[in-house]
Amino acid sequence: MPDIRHRVAISAPLSSVYEAVATKEGLSEWWTRGGVEGESSEASKLQFFFGQPEPAAVMEVTRLNPDGEVSWRCVAGADEWVGTNLTFNLTQTDGETVVLFTHADWRSPSEFMAHCSARWAYFLLSLKSYLETGKGTPFPDDLKF
Amino acid sequence: MPDIRHRVAISAPLSSVYEAVATKEGLSEWWTRGGVEGESSEASKLQFFFGQPEPAAVMEVTRLNPDGEVSWRCVAGADEWVGTNLTFNLTQTDGETVVLFTHADWRSPSEFMAHCSARWAYFLLSLKSYLETGKGTPFPDDLKF
Repeated sequence: MPDIRHRVAISAPLSSVYEAVATKEGLSEWWTRGGVEGESSEASKLQFFFGQPEPAAVMEVTRLNPDGEVSWRCVAGADEWVGTNLTFNLTQTDGETVVLFTHADWRSPSEFMAHCSARWAYFLLSLKSYLETGKGTPFPDDLKF
Repeated sequence: MPDIRHRVAISAPLSSVYEAVATKEGLSEWWTRGGVEGESSEASKLQFFFGQPEPAAVMEVTRLNPDGEVSWRCVAGADEWVGTNLTFNLTQTDGETVVLFTHADWRSPSEFMAHCSARWAYFLLSLKSYLETGKGTPFPDDLKF
């Protein structure tokens, strides 16, 4: 099954990057501002809103490991997302944390998947900007494309 | 074989987007400033330089169709790139041109492929910026990550 995979290096400690992907407050700073509800703990669910009354995605948190892994399984939302698995793998190197992001197990390499691939890269650069400068570009401040 | 695929919508006519991916002058504006040599015609080769005396990639131009397709085959450069195939597919819709970019036929979903995936998304947004505002972020003005 086709996967989206992106690697982005961030000048911040692993613990800071982890907080930004493992907590509602962190996710709100780079993906969707004020749009994260639910609970970020293993087996709990997170709802992500993008200006609509219904969540665009509901993720079951499948792994939270402060050593460097956050994983979700999409259980509701865009039809093509349901059943896909998302992972943020973090590795600390000299003064940097490398984020290896995977949005895996798509049913087909659709045009929507290609759209999401570019969108994820954009939001991972928002994550980098948030951690390096204090300011990300989450929805609704994001570039539309 | 794993592929990188990105979709980006650009507020510009298809002919302008085509010029930006089919000509050396255009490619220089969003990918590598002053770093494109060779000839952009079918069966010819293009060399792309990124600040080094050797080209980072040599592409054989496999298709140039002003209706909306530019394809290359990488014939020299980074080991993992050699033998991969790159395509820019352009489709005009209401006031927009949709770019469907594919960098296909990687041997394995390596960390370098994940790096290139994020880099391509970044440079496709540079292409968008160049066409919509007149200013891209090609190498060496690009964000490093």
